[in-house]
Amino acid sequence: MDKKRFKKQLSFILEADKEKNILRQTHLSGHGRRENDAEHAWHMAVMIYLLREYANEEIDLAKAMMMALIHDIVEIDAGDTYAYDEQGLITQKEREEKAAERIFGLLPEDQGNELRQLFEEFETYATPEARFARAMDNFQPLLLNNSNDGEDWKQHSIRRSQVEGRHRNTARGSREIGGYSMELIDENVRKGNLIEDL
Amino acid sequence: MDKKRFKKQLSFILEADKEKNILRQTHLSGHGRRENDAEHAWHMAVMIYLLREYANEEIDLAKAMMMALIHDIVEIDAGDTYAYDEQGLITQKEREEKAAERIFGLLPEDQGNELRQLFEEFETYATPEARFARAMDNFQPLLLNNSNDGEDWKQHSIRRSQVEGRHRNTARGSREIGGYSMELIDENVRKGNLIEDL
Repeated sequence: MDKKRFKKQLSFILEADKEKNILRQTHLSGHGRRENDAEHAWHMAVMIYLLREYANEEIDLAKAMMMALIHDIVEIDAGDTYAYDEQGLITQKEREEKAAERIFGLLPEDQGNELRQLFEEFETYATPEARFARAMDNFQPLLLNNSNDGEDWKQHSIRRSQVEGRHRNTARGSREIGGYSMELIDENVRKGNLIEDL
Repeated sequence: MDKKRFKKQLSFILEADKEKNILRQTHLSGHGRRENDAEHAWHMAVMIYLLREYANEEIDLAKAMMMALIHDIVEIDAGDTYAYDEQGLITQKEREEKAAERIFGLLPEDQGNELRQLFEEFETYATPEARFARAMDNFQPLLLNNSNDGEDWKQHSIRRSQVEGRHRNTARGSREIGGYSMELIDENVRKGNLIEDL
């Protein structure tokens, strides 16, 4: 065992623990407390495994799962940016690049580069794994929010066009789950959980 | 898309959300709040990916990661049993079997059987993936506890023999990480974080 290498790996693993304290806007099912990034990533990875039959393209399962598990780790420094926070979205990229540099830099160089690459692929929908992982990144909070009768949307007065804009990308990873997402959105507009603006 | 099959998958995925509310005895690094099962499983899966070079045997990465992600899901019904709670450990198996029946039973039959199988393998150290995933199940709280100066052990007056007994199994998945675990335990005995009884 190369102890220097191992210590670098452990220092990243311990740093990652902080992701458990980064809160998202989404609430757990039953509208309990807010969800954190580690829980969200865990849920996404489980979904990738169980729903992979609906992916548009063949995917490398371990790669897609790892991408999901670490895609929010930059938020340890950069914070969570709500999907419908237009001001926050402007500075998000710069904040996250800087964070990626520091956090992936804790790892041995080969693994730091590998995870940085997974993170970039995810951001840019560059690979089949990224497209499917991003579909789950959209679909997971949609499921929770739908199970909570749209409380998170109602609280922020979210409009149909905003949600559809985001969830349209789900079809890039899975046409079937993208289609189902649109059904759920329709249903929530009918129930008054989302404001109709189209 | 077979909608009936998809709905079963979604019902399991929504049920799994409850794992985020099952608290463990381990505290997050910095001795913040207690960790929950979903966060622990997330951390384990990240570790499996990053530390796989230390596994004794070749492992199927996606299988080992999924095993880690779902190994505690039975605790939704059965509750968490602390590794050093001798009374709880007696009834644990029966409670967990019943829970596995119900929770994996939410899935389509093929996937329910597959996850049940992963869960059983994990419990019995039956495969290389199970042995490495269990090594991470031991090593992850050891890392956190060590980073917190052994607070969780001190609180429960844990003895060296108890901790060594558990961590001896780590070597079945990774001799190298098993060896490092023993070093950490020695260090914590020296610091008075664990009671010397050997």
